[in-house]
Amino acid sequence: MPESVPTVVVVGAGFGGITLVRRLHREPLRIVLVDQNNFHLFTPLLYEVGSALLDPSEIAYPTRAILRRYHNVEFRMAHIDAIDLAGRRLQTPEGTIPYDYLVIAAGSVTNFFGNAELATEAFGLKDLGDALALRNRVLAQFEQASWIQDESARRKLLSFVVVGGGPTGVEFAGALSELINLVLRKDFRELDVRQAQITLVEGAGSVLAGYHPSLQAAAARTLERKGIRLIFNAMVAGLRHGQVLLQDGRELEAGTVIWTAGVRGGDLGRQLGLPLGRGGRVPVEPTLQLAAHPEVFIIGDLAEVRQGGTLLPQVIPVAMQEAACVAFNLRALRRGEPLRPFRYRDPGSMATIGRNAGVVQLRGLRFSGFIGWVMWLVFHLLQVISLRNRLIVLINWAKDYFFYDRPVRLIARAAGPARSEPLPVGAGRPGPSPPPRS
Amino acid sequence: MPESVPTVVVVGAGFGGITLVRRLHREPLRIVLVDQNNFHLFTPLLYEVGSALLDPSEIAYPTRAILRRYHNVEFRMAHIDAIDLAGRRLQTPEGTIPYDYLVIAAGSVTNFFGNAELATEAFGLKDLGDALALRNRVLAQFEQASWIQDESARRKLLSFVVVGGGPTGVEFAGALSELINLVLRKDFRELDVRQAQITLVEGAGSVLAGYHPSLQAAAARTLERKGIRLIFNAMVAGLRHGQVLLQDGRELEAGTVIWTAGVRGGDLGRQLGLPLGRGGRVPVEPTLQLAAHPEVFIIGDLAEVRQGGTLLPQVIPVAMQEAACVAFNLRALRRGEPLRPFRYRDPGSMATIGRNAGVVQLRGLRFSGFIGWVMWLVFHLLQVISLRNRLIVLINWAKDYFFYDRPVRLIARAAGPARSEPLPVGAGRPGPSPPPRS
Repeated sequence: MPESVPTVVVVGAGFGGITLVRRLHREPLRIVLVDQNNFHLFTPLLYEVGSALLDPSEIAYPTRAILRRYHNVEFRMAHIDAIDLAGRRLQTPEGTIPYDYLVIAAGSVTNFFGNAELATEAFGLKDLGDALALRNRVLAQFEQASWIQDESARRKLLSFVVVGGGPTGVEFAGALSELINLVLRKDFRELDVRQAQITLVEGAGSVLAGYHPSLQAAAARTLERKGIRLIFNAMVAGLRHGQVLLQDGRELEAGTVIWTAGVRGGDLGRQLGLPLGRGGRVPVEPTLQLAAHPEVFIIGDLAEVRQGGTLLPQVIPVAMQEAACVAFNLRALRRGEPLRPFRYRDPGSMATIGRNAGVVQLRGLRFSGFIGWVMWLVFHLLQVISLRNRLIVLINWAKDYFFYDRPVRLIARAAGPARSEPLPVGAGRPGPSPPPRS
Repeated sequence: MPESVPTVVVVGAGFGGITLVRRLHREPLRIVLVDQNNFHLFTPLLYEVGSALLDPSEIAYPTRAILRRYHNVEFRMAHIDAIDLAGRRLQTPEGTIPYDYLVIAAGSVTNFFGNAELATEAFGLKDLGDALALRNRVLAQFEQASWIQDESARRKLLSFVVVGGGPTGVEFAGALSELINLVLRKDFRELDVRQAQITLVEGAGSVLAGYHPSLQAAAARTLERKGIRLIFNAMVAGLRHGQVLLQDGRELEAGTVIWTAGVRGGDLGRQLGLPLGRGGRVPVEPTLQLAAHPEVFIIGDLAEVRQGGTLLPQVIPVAMQEAACVAFNLRALRRGEPLRPFRYRDPGSMATIGRNAGVVQLRGLRFSGFIGWVMWLVFHLLQVISLRNRLIVLINWAKDYFFYDRPVRLIARAAGPARSEPLPVGAGRPGPSPPPRS
């Protein structure tokens, strides 16, 4: 590749980053994709890892496998320590990465709104580590409960509070209820699993904000039919001694708290040293560029983009469409042509609340119940990367649906020698590390 | 169940414990199976988890799912703190478990022979946590190497020393070689994966002790054809600064050490307070009972059993046959009939060294190469528990065989809130814990 080919560094191998790389792979560019994990995560099914229905490899696909056929793309696994906008380079523990153009698609992280107890005690459901830890936790709570005779102690241990009634909270609550009442009921004959209680706490007056009220009502009915207690118009004030405290003074038993009540832009936003918008998002121009640095684009959950006065939501379709827009604008920028402002077209949304129950809205159309569920299944099955994963997801879903059995209810974690623990590449590197551009 | 039914406590849900429970499930007994994990592990395929070919749930099957149809069996997940032989009860952090009869099938752990550096730095390959940590490590070494320009530093990072030429060492070395040369080669275009070096160190003069010399030679040839360096008649003296030191003074570059050179009886053996045999095994009577405590049986890797003067090996068929013997002897003991001494019948052995290469010996017959490999595949596929797992193992093997692709090459670990970390049930239990017998 001639030296004159410019380098585009893309930070983040989520839906935004991967879409962008796919759009750019025929361009005369050298592309470096950087992520702190070595996989692309299909986040919509993360709750199924947390509820012991799928294994990580069914929803996490090795980034390098995706990039194999793109010959102008390199991958680097690293945590980004700092962004040097003036010097046009990223600092990582492994070395620096210079760029001509930078696209930050670093996503968002769970927002505990500064509450230290929540950050320490509650489980997020935002990345693969969260989902595995949550699965281990749910199963361990039942194992522990099987030792305990005292009914109130048992009920406490088996109380789960899901905070946040968005798709993640609703889907996880539904899946957890089915795990307990259909699967674990058969595993733990010595327990009365009806003593387990799932509570969903939502600040607004309904679940699934943004959905049509009829679908919100359908989802709420399904959740209640599953025995999930719904608490609306309630804000969580804190967490103490296994109790969730609501701002109105109520206290909820909470052996385990699952926090899906908000995300914020990741730490990379702060490292830019620019004024941040709501939830740590970075305000960008309509072309998705930084105002002071036209060579830097921000897309996805980290970008604060308004359309018609309203903030665009932090969802996958926004990130993917922004990636397409940046692919266009990068080309225009190099050719000196005018850049295009981003315009979002909402493709609709869907969520599932468990077997036979889904809600779907597509343009003017709305579906719920069995039809909504089938649409959800087919759509998500097709989205999973690779034929193998589709097959295995289908096998697992079928086993769960027909036999009320979830194959992956294992309490497992990597446990190697001490020095292997802080895994992300970094300290202890035996040699020098010049920039990857050689 | 009437109060007069005696309680048999079985410690360990490995091949010995599960076989025993299956044999006893129609007896008028109350059986309590105790294990510190919630799954039964199909250890012969553990090396495939370590080499990114299988996921945990394909080889680890929830113990409670196995026990579902056995109505006289309860499961308790716990670590055993102490065995009170006089008081006939086990102490666990969750409470005590009284027994009338006790069968200890607690297996073995990696034996680092008291070498602290090895215990800290080397990777075992004995349980699921080991295998996941090893997989993470191998993949992370390559990610790190992709940052490094200095060739000697890179070679060091990509040097793997497998200590021990038994089936685990041989199978892992073969699988690692194929992972690197067939799969990672395509993932890491920026690396010359031929710089990776796998060395297998064995104390004896050949791999696969106990196999016929012609099969040992076939296995060694296959390993060498894969580029694995074989060092025979060499003992490891220690590990320092990323170098394995051999007793003859040689030093081997070792970015990662995989230690499969020995096992010892688990800590439960020591807790019995009895004199121990070789490798921490507990000497038992020919009937598998403790001499001083005829109500206590020991089977599997923890038991020291001699036959015709030689010590029986620590392999699965021994544990399973011992379990059958104990099932018989428990019945005899209760009926006041004479107990049977254990007699082992060797069913043969098999190992694979990678694609198209296996070695099998069955009574007088020996197979190697492609036929041995097919026999290995069919046998192991049929042994995996559940149709789902057989399907998924088959899908993964087929994908690897035909497309040189391993789907599960993810660097992943559970990462939840602080308090969820020391998972095995224990501290922090909110209530009292009377014995499970109520």
